[in-house]
Amino acid sequence: MLNTRLTQAFDIEHPVVLAPMDLVSGSRLASAVAAAGGLGMIGGGYGDREWLKRELAAVNSARVGCGFITWSLARDPDLLDIALEHEPTAVMLSFGDPAPFAERVRAADVPLLCQVHTLDQARQALDAGADVIVGQGGEAGGHGVGSRSTFTLVPDIADLIAARSPETLLVAAGGVADGRGLAAALSLGADGVLVGTRFWATEEAAVSPLAHARAVGATGDDTIRTTVYDIVRQYPWPADYNARLLRNQFINRWHGREADLAARVPEAVTEFHTGVAEQDFDIANMIVGEAVGRVHEILPAGDIVRRMVREAADRLSRWAAGTATLGM
Amino acid sequence: MLNTRLTQAFDIEHPVVLAPMDLVSGSRLASAVAAAGGLGMIGGGYGDREWLKRELAAVNSARVGCGFITWSLARDPDLLDIALEHEPTAVMLSFGDPAPFAERVRAADVPLLCQVHTLDQARQALDAGADVIVGQGGEAGGHGVGSRSTFTLVPDIADLIAARSPETLLVAAGGVADGRGLAAALSLGADGVLVGTRFWATEEAAVSPLAHARAVGATGDDTIRTTVYDIVRQYPWPADYNARLLRNQFINRWHGREADLAARVPEAVTEFHTGVAEQDFDIANMIVGEAVGRVHEILPAGDIVRRMVREAADRLSRWAAGTATLGM
Repeated sequence: MLNTRLTQAFDIEHPVVLAPMDLVSGSRLASAVAAAGGLGMIGGGYGDREWLKRELAAVNSARVGCGFITWSLARDPDLLDIALEHEPTAVMLSFGDPAPFAERVRAADVPLLCQVHTLDQARQALDAGADVIVGQGGEAGGHGVGSRSTFTLVPDIADLIAARSPETLLVAAGGVADGRGLAAALSLGADGVLVGTRFWATEEAAVSPLAHARAVGATGDDTIRTTVYDIVRQYPWPADYNARLLRNQFINRWHGREADLAARVPEAVTEFHTGVAEQDFDIANMIVGEAVGRVHEILPAGDIVRRMVREAADRLSRWAAGTATLGM
Repeated sequence: MLNTRLTQAFDIEHPVVLAPMDLVSGSRLASAVAAAGGLGMIGGGYGDREWLKRELAAVNSARVGCGFITWSLARDPDLLDIALEHEPTAVMLSFGDPAPFAERVRAADVPLLCQVHTLDQARQALDAGADVIVGQGGEAGGHGVGSRSTFTLVPDIADLIAARSPETLLVAAGGVADGRGLAAALSLGADGVLVGTRFWATEEAAVSPLAHARAVGATGDDTIRTTVYDIVRQYPWPADYNARLLRNQFINRWHGREADLAARVPEAVTEFHTGVAEQDFDIANMIVGEAVGRVHEILPAGDIVRRMVREAADRLSRWAAGTATLGM
């Protein structure tokens, strides 16, 4: 219904891309999004080798790619070869300079998606030869710089692309959870959207039902950007990065007291692991964005794709006569 | 060209509202926006009584309202009477509980606009009887809570309004600087937009040409949310509020060192006042939002209104057939 440069380039039905959420976006979710006409993405994340091999092998669609955390991939660079052996529809690199990996992706004739959080990072991605820039605002769940928003970053990157590299595509990420968001992203100049939180809240996502139940009751006001879980998970995130999550007791206790937390990592790690094992989401982390406020039920991912596209097309077509209807 | 509930309610041609920027949105700018078919707003701000009287008296259009900083108005509440005596088209209250003033505005039969930054504040504004909710994301210049973004806050408030008070209107603020932003805001469920930065960068705005020149060279990446100027200006902003400004030497020196700055307020105040007097914007503050990246020239405000609406209508009409054109 909504044909864009993105649907044409990837031969997909809908301009909707699954965010490659670490461990959450497995073969089941990626295949479901692809089956519904979107672009599926496996969440290679921090690089769990066995998980990655298993999920890549289990994919049942040609329209599934794979995403990595760039700085983490640099620690274990042959994970990229594992992904490329499965002939993914795309490789997506996020969080770090994509240049060291771009040549291998290009040599495999696989389109390269680069996720960026600022206009400066978009310039770097163009320099690396990205085929698609994914511009992500700070409303998104998970990691990012958090200094820019989807609403301004997308048109800024669109202007940069128009001036420097008009054939490069642009995908909007951060805050897109329904047809209104898709329609808005296209209006801002994107060729499609990357969706995390709304697909996190689907039947095919590898997410605890207890976490899903919490998400259904939450609003965007309940989310916050913080580094406390990076401290307790001991991941060496580069400076400037933090992550948006659902607020909980653990965040309320430690956010703003990061030095104290860092000084007691051993106890905190034990507490965190216990929380994860017990699915206690007052301790364990729930990585969702501001768009969690529009999650009212857990649905099949295919329903999300179809509803989103139908609602976007409906909203956009209301303006066909150049005037709005009441209640738009 | 774009008729919405907002244009109907205020009998205006275009769904575009001038942000009541303190001292910047004087009679000249407000009248220019109104003359172009938008809704003008006088920036009552912190409450400079003589300035307010003069600017209200100089307004030459019936389609001009007046905005106040709510917590500041509470210190000098009869400023509201001065505004109401001029029969403004609307009164807008931002930053604080509007309830103590809502009755006087209602008694004067003037529509009440309440600016909010979170879903919780939107609930408070509905409780106070707001006729229009202005939902402002953290990409906006100037003060706000900064925890939510336009892209998610607008649909969240739209859903709240639909459930609780369907006759209330919704205006999107934060990041709107061109027709793409207007089209996106309408797609997200807003009835119109409130525009600050792009009108700040017009010929009619009370802004130094030196500040304008800096803005033309800046991008959204160059802005930051901070409290350092609240410390040096000694304004008692409520907790949770900060402001987005253009980064400069003063911010680079003090942001993250707020306690040090607070300990040397006398010297810093002297430096700040000197910077303001000398129009040295490495010291003086420049209050602009992420949308500053789309300011490439200083134009008459009327041109901004007309371009914005034309571009939005053009973008939205491209989807009339349900398919995008290449390069959308």
